[in-house]
Amino acid sequence: MTTDAPAWALAMLREGRVGRLATADVSGRPLVVPVCYVLDADGHRVYSAIDAKPKRTRQLRRLRNIRENPHVSLVVDQYDEDWSRLRYVIVEGNAEIVEAGPLRERAIDLLLEKYSQYLALGLAADRGPVIAIAVERIVAWRYA
Amino acid sequence: MTTDAPAWALAMLREGRVGRLATADVSGRPLVVPVCYVLDADGHRVYSAIDAKPKRTRQLRRLRNIRENPHVSLVVDQYDEDWSRLRYVIVEGNAEIVEAGPLRERAIDLLLEKYSQYLALGLAADRGPVIAIAVERIVAWRYA
Repeated sequence: MTTDAPAWALAMLREGRVGRLATADVSGRPLVVPVCYVLDADGHRVYSAIDAKPKRTRQLRRLRNIRENPHVSLVVDQYDEDWSRLRYVIVEGNAEIVEAGPLRERAIDLLLEKYSQYLALGLAADRGPVIAIAVERIVAWRYA
Repeated sequence: MTTDAPAWALAMLREGRVGRLATADVSGRPLVVPVCYVLDADGHRVYSAIDAKPKRTRQLRRLRNIRENPHVSLVVDQYDEDWSRLRYVIVEGNAEIVEAGPLRERAIDLLLEKYSQYLALGLAADRGPVIAIAVERIVAWRYA
């Protein structure tokens, strides 16, 4: 589906350093959290790790929500006080939690490549799961 | 409930220029969009306007979602390549769409005060509705 998105939107998804991920529990109560993420080369999947940054709990609500309800939405945007420069890209898709295997390894490789910070945190050695989002739809908007 | 939140988190909510708002439809499919917003002086409500910026449609999905399901989540965060400086504040609450009356006027006044850009866009004259979120819970996190 990503071929429908304009080039600037795909570039923004590739280059963005932070996204905000919305999940919802089975009763439809949404939760939005900032996440580091990476778009796979083919544009079909977005990955995000549960990394070694300190967390309140390992039983993260985003994971519980995805287990209950795979629908997610991720936005990458640019805020600017000059509102004519505002733009955003929303990815809608279905998420799965990947605890092990080649998909997790690919996600970890791509995240390490994009974020050198993960090297210091030892992401590769971390046993945390990865969220893999199968992209279903991309909505791109800019002011102009 | 906002009195539970640490001072830095309330300051971040007050000073933040952009938040990301998650809504979900009745089937639990979430949507996240960047929004301008303002926290009321008493900390009990957050307002966001459907302003005159160009939109795909006036039948915005965020409005349809809120009509179906009032639960929302708003995050205000700071991204930094130095991850020890990461922090975020999440507001969870119940949203209502306010088409007219004193609550809408208060929201518009506060938004105009915070964002001078709205003056150029003629927000006050705009007949668009306002989203008023009754704050139920604030979750604050920082790396340290």
